[in-house]
Amino acid sequence: MKLDNSNSNGQMSIAADVTPPNNSDDADEAFVPPLNFAMVDNGIFRSGFPDSANFGFLKSLRLRSVICLCPEPYPETTAEFLKASGIRLYQFGIDGCKEPFVNIPNDKIREALKVVLDVRNHPVLIHCKRGKHRTGCLVGCIRRLQRWCLSSIFDEYQRFAGAKARVSDQRFIELFDISSLKHNPLSFSCSKK
Amino acid sequence: MKLDNSNSNGQMSIAADVTPPNNSDDADEAFVPPLNFAMVDNGIFRSGFPDSANFGFLKSLRLRSVICLCPEPYPETTAEFLKASGIRLYQFGIDGCKEPFVNIPNDKIREALKVVLDVRNHPVLIHCKRGKHRTGCLVGCIRRLQRWCLSSIFDEYQRFAGAKARVSDQRFIELFDISSLKHNPLSFSCSKK
Repeated sequence: MKLDNSNSNGQMSIAADVTPPNNSDDADEAFVPPLNFAMVDNGIFRSGFPDSANFGFLKSLRLRSVICLCPEPYPETTAEFLKASGIRLYQFGIDGCKEPFVNIPNDKIREALKVVLDVRNHPVLIHCKRGKHRTGCLVGCIRRLQRWCLSSIFDEYQRFAGAKARVSDQRFIELFDISSLKHNPLSFSCSKK
Repeated sequence: MKLDNSNSNGQMSIAADVTPPNNSDDADEAFVPPLNFAMVDNGIFRSGFPDSANFGFLKSLRLRSVICLCPEPYPETTAEFLKASGIRLYQFGIDGCKEPFVNIPNDKIREALKVVLDVRNHPVLIHCKRGKHRTGCLVGCIRRLQRWCLSSIFDEYQRFAGAKARVSDQRFIELFDISSLKHNPLSFSCSKK
């Protein structure tokens, strides 16, 4: 499938001109990525909850969709920004409970994974509140599909969760049943574009 | 410039079949990314020193080049793997000194940056020993070129350095003169491919 934002000749455009954030003419204005922002794979990003300071940076990613893993109503300013930018919002509300009252629901992670696996939604930003636990669980399941060994998956999870790392999240990632999604495995595919 | 590994029709191939690591027929064999492995941007990865356990995973990245920031002679097994895989090795030896005897040399980081900015070298893996300090400095300079605000650059640096984060590295990143490289700014360009 050819995506609208693909370069017509497959050219790598990493050195392309940068669109100034916030549509400002000030080319030196700094980009402010959301908290805990990182690239997961081609077309897949992760972060904490974005706010208006991040809109310029998010614009530069030319996102097609956002997956929010928080159950609260989406903040109006951010919802308006997404709408104005033509970015589709997928919300899979998961409570941000603390141990030992943690219950990451299998079905919501599975539905979110299906959105992530569909390249028509790329580039996609996955976020929760702080980009640690719920986002970490979803990214951990992506890594399972990419056949990363568990120690590497947990290493990555812990890098984002820091002192807040939860054994229960890591257990969820380990036990999550990927068999039904295996027909569509993700590779770490940067070079295959 | 069109790269050999670009898909001829610009198709996103994140869901493509995975080449089994180590040329094994065991499709369930796990990938073992190197310590502190992460994606920096399209075609740019970072990690600690790769060893033979990581060769299967590195193969899957279809690297074109590796930038090593350590001064020691490259281990024979890894050098042979790179040679056999047609991966070019760039070595910019920077001593891994501890504070307060730290001296990240401007000229070596600048030369390494030129290699990173040249898309003909992509996909490229940047590594040092643990993927924290020397690699963190180089990635920090890439983020400067991408116009990230300093607090986001330091947040990323600290995520990888953890308890070993160095103020001196962060000062180096802040003070590094990017003016001569500014004609070729990097965007966070996932979506532009």
